[in-house]
Amino acid sequence: MRNVILLINCPDKKGIVATVTNFVLSKKGNTVYVEQHVDRELGEFFMRLECEFDDDEEKLTIFKESFTKEVAKNYNMHWEMYNAEKKPRMAIFVSKYDHCLYDILGRHASGELHVKIPIIISNHEDLKPIADSFNIPFKHIPVSKDNGQQAENEHLKLLKDSKIDFIVLARYMQIIPPNFVNQYPNRIINIHHSFLPAFPGAKPYHSAYKRGVKIIGATGHYVTSELDEGPIIEQEIARVSHIHNVQDFILKGRDLEKIVLSKAIKYHIERKVLVYSNKTVIFS
Amino acid sequence: MRNVILLINCPDKKGIVATVTNFVLSKKGNTVYVEQHVDRELGEFFMRLECEFDDDEEKLTIFKESFTKEVAKNYNMHWEMYNAEKKPRMAIFVSKYDHCLYDILGRHASGELHVKIPIIISNHEDLKPIADSFNIPFKHIPVSKDNGQQAENEHLKLLKDSKIDFIVLARYMQIIPPNFVNQYPNRIINIHHSFLPAFPGAKPYHSAYKRGVKIIGATGHYVTSELDEGPIIEQEIARVSHIHNVQDFILKGRDLEKIVLSKAIKYHIERKVLVYSNKTVIFS
Amino acid sequence: MRNVILLINCPDKKGIVATVTNFVLSKKGNTVYVEQHVDRELGEFFMRLECEFDDDEEKLTIFKESFTKEVAKNYNMHWEMYNAEKKPRMAIFVSKYDHCLYDILGRHASGELHVKIPIIISNHEDLKPIADSFNIPFKHIPVSKDNGQQAENEHLKLLKDSKIDFIVLARYMQIIPPNFVNQYPNRIINIHHSFLPAFPGAKPYHSAYKRGVKIIGATGHYVTSELDEGPIIEQEIARVSHIHNVQDFILKGRDLEKIVLSKAIKYHIERKVLVYSNKTVIFS
Amino acid sequence: MRNVILLINCPDKKGIVATVTNFVLSKKGNTVYVEQHVDRELGEFFMRLECEFDDDEEKLTIFKESFTKEVAKNYNMHWEMYNAEKKPRMAIFVSKYDHCLYDILGRHASGELHVKIPIIISNHEDLKPIADSFNIPFKHIPVSKDNGQQAENEHLKLLKDSKIDFIVLARYMQIIPPNFVNQYPNRIINIHHSFLPAFPGAKPYHSAYKRGVKIIGATGHYVTSELDEGPIIEQEIARVSHIHNVQDFILKGRDLEKIVLSKAIKYHIERKVLVYSNKTVIFS
Repeated sequence: MRNVILLINCPDKKGIVATVTNFVLSKKGNTVYVEQHVDRELGEFFMRLECEFDDDEEKLTIFKESFTKEVAKNYNMHWEMYNAEKKPRMAIFVSKYDHCLYDILGRHASGELHVKIPIIISNHEDLKPIADSFNIPFKHIPVSKDNGQQAENEHLKLLKDSKIDFIVLARYMQIIPPNFVNQYPNRIINIHHSFLPAFPGAKPYHSAYKRGVKIIGATGHYVTSELDEGPIIEQEIARVSHIHNVQDFILKGRDLEKIVLSKAIKYHIERKVLVYSNKTVIFS
Repeated sequence: MRNVILLINCPDKKGIVATVTNFVLSKKGNTVYVEQHVDRELGEFFMRLECEFDDDEEKLTIFKESFTKEVAKNYNMHWEMYNAEKKPRMAIFVSKYDHCLYDILGRHASGELHVKIPIIISNHEDLKPIADSFNIPFKHIPVSKDNGQQAENEHLKLLKDSKIDFIVLARYMQIIPPNFVNQYPNRIINIHHSFLPAFPGAKPYHSAYKRGVKIIGATGHYVTSELDEGPIIEQEIARVSHIHNVQDFILKGRDLEKIVLSKAIKYHIERKVLVYSNKTVIFS
Repeated sequence: MRNVILLINCPDKKGIVATVTNFVLSKKGNTVYVEQHVDRELGEFFMRLECEFDDDEEKLTIFKESFTKEVAKNYNMHWEMYNAEKKPRMAIFVSKYDHCLYDILGRHASGELHVKIPIIISNHEDLKPIADSFNIPFKHIPVSKDNGQQAENEHLKLLKDSKIDFIVLARYMQIIPPNFVNQYPNRIINIHHSFLPAFPGAKPYHSAYKRGVKIIGATGHYVTSELDEGPIIEQEIARVSHIHNVQDFILKGRDLEKIVLSKAIKYHIERKVLVYSNKTVIFS
Repeated sequence: MRNVILLINCPDKKGIVATVTNFVLSKKGNTVYVEQHVDRELGEFFMRLECEFDDDEEKLTIFKESFTKEVAKNYNMHWEMYNAEKKPRMAIFVSKYDHCLYDILGRHASGELHVKIPIIISNHEDLKPIADSFNIPFKHIPVSKDNGQQAENEHLKLLKDSKIDFIVLARYMQIIPPNFVNQYPNRIINIHHSFLPAFPGAKPYHSAYKRGVKIIGATGHYVTSELDEGPIIEQEIARVSHIHNVQDFILKGRDLEKIVLSKAIKYHIERKVLVYSNKTVIFS
């Protein structure tokens, strides 16, 4: 038996649910779970199906071809199909902050994240010992004003060699160049340490402190070419008061960052995210 | 065009989603929205469909008959069908506390609740002026140790005469007798002022204060014959600390009660609640 | 016995707490409650004292004079003294939205707000019936592009005649002119329907929807001459997801607005707010 | 300069704040921070002072003696004095669950917890590698039905030898015998995986799932001889719905447990907790 996930979006029309679930049935598949959403403003239909098929690679290939011809074309669908059992390959980019890295590797070690981590990449050597203690390859690629293009080339080669499916920026603190972003559309997850769109850019905790907010936050989002403007996957907040200084904001924020980033990673791994119109549909 | 809501549960089996959505399509209906859940532990399947049909009462009657024969029987379904446009009729029971009543009537007045309120019933006269100011009939039925059966009879007659679909206990503070409960199964919504199962019964804020909890809560649930043991629809909490005394708990709790009760009412009105095994599936 | 509240701030220095509490004691007062905060970055000291004195108006006047001469001067204090039992006089400005008004008047009616409400002012007549039902004078002062100065004059006269201590903008939807603001510094409380500084200005729910946030909020703040830039008193948030449209945001936001505004009002009434450097210290 | 923390509680009386802060001043100390609470129901006064003194061990000893004679006795105070710079010594008890241990050691490694960890004790060997990777001594003391007294003796000797100030049960899963508890009153912090008093005892996530709650929680509390009945230090909650099974509850709960336990530890380390009448005053 093979578990397969279908992610579909297309202009909204009558009968899509029936058509798709019926087609799966006709191909001897069983729709285990269906979730659906219609954005009425945009007239767009979204669906996530979990299906079970007999484990026959050839039949699945045939299924794909038939689905494209007999269903997807008629509805002008954008669709993707995933093997639910196959672990996606995730690269982690870090800089000097260790809390998100510790959190991700701890969750991975205890079986919480259904993912492979072939490589950790950093512009500094500081976190190598952590990677070592979890037995994950660590690659130090320095980034400076002068070696931008060279670093990007090294990054992209390394990601390609490691067959990386998606990338997590675990407080990487470097701007990803547009060409890099374009090669991993909706596949680079960043954690920003504010409740966006408040306090984009650098030093958001300092700005939040200065503004005197009573709530701070963290935002997990896909990286686009516009800094901190990509589709938001998850947000979380914590209360603060006058008794907290910037350092307290940073400490409280660390917990938010860990929780939000790990949730965003999970949604991505479980194929629960559909991106449309710079927003996300999360079938959680 | 008529909007119809189908609520279905049955033992989990292959192909239910396809079968049902296909059946709707075959009867010229359009499945606008489908939500689904499988409780794997209990092997039970749950589904909520919003469908559009041509507005033809006769055809809908035929649909119902066909669905029973051709679908529901085969899958051993428990199912219900609602006209989404028809406002259900809700009775409110109150005692002396006014905050939940104010909240419900205020929301109703501003169009937030798609419901009719033919009657407010109380064992005291205190809140009659509020009912009057919102132009809703108010019926005072005193309840004492000695007139239990008589009061129950009056209640049930009044509810029947007013064609009440479901009942909201807005801090009614009286125990509903089993016979009454049995006539409105999963149709009596109570607000309990604690996060159940902590602090069931009387004076939960006092008990919470005594125990020194750091969080208080409120619970909206269906009434069953077991006091405060019915299926939970919604819960919400608020933080407290040593600076708060019982009176502060009560004040903070009032806001929780209002919000939780109004959410529970909305879920019920919108036919988003399925009850099974003393728990709720909320398709929110 | 008379309860008095002292609010003090001054440059931080050794021995302030001892000096002040000692001074109160020397004047036959009893410090019932003291709360204190030091902003180390700004080197500013903040204190709130609740004291009990014998009920002798003359002695209190003497206390004030002595405190100024013997304590406040030495420490370069900014300080205020309030009679805790005297209800402050609050004006409410509304436009067409009724939910915050209902909420405030409901809380007032049930004794939750220790305040007098001599007047409700609006640029529309829509909410007059609500004011009437709570027996509170309602004054309709239309505001247009052309009558700005005249409306402001009427507002200020009305507030003066009603001896108003502070003003609540309960979704008033009009910008308060600088001259008006200056006459009530840190005495005009506004509710803004976003978690500032995200989405200042008009239609924040629409902007939040467009940005695809997963959390919406509301902010209670003092009005300054900079729109939505005043000191934040309280903030609260609610989770949203792709299933919610702008209308859902607005509905969820209404509950946030009510709760945040009523909390901000309470903090102000109970003299728990100290403003400094465009931020608030809330002794809650 | 030496920073000192005073924790005081006594029957409420006039003038305590002035007396204490004045006394500190008279001994050339500077009260940097004072927090105070009065439980009016119990008539009990609580205070936490942070003071600065010249760094002179002898003078502090004299201060203590004078304070006892001249202040504490008159007010019938229970009081403690701590050197704020001295790191308390914390023992961690674990069993097989690793998430809380990882969390505590990670926070400790990054400087978040002002504490020494001389020893980790466990009834199983599973988590020794984690202790090793953080270079903290790990002692395996098996516990069975038959060796209860012997294990207790070993525990107590080890704690004494390591000069342990307080103990953290990081999901230790064993009941601490009364004699052990009595030797560390209000010095053993446990994390219970429910919002107490709901679901005390074993398998709370299973019970919560069975009851169909919409909110789960975790509770950090001091251990007393009554199981899960000790004074609550901190609680936190997470929302769940019908889509979550017991395993999801457990996963979500892990994050709660980590956050609640680390907060409880911090409050304890920073001497912010006063226990009275089986409740806590947290000066946070």
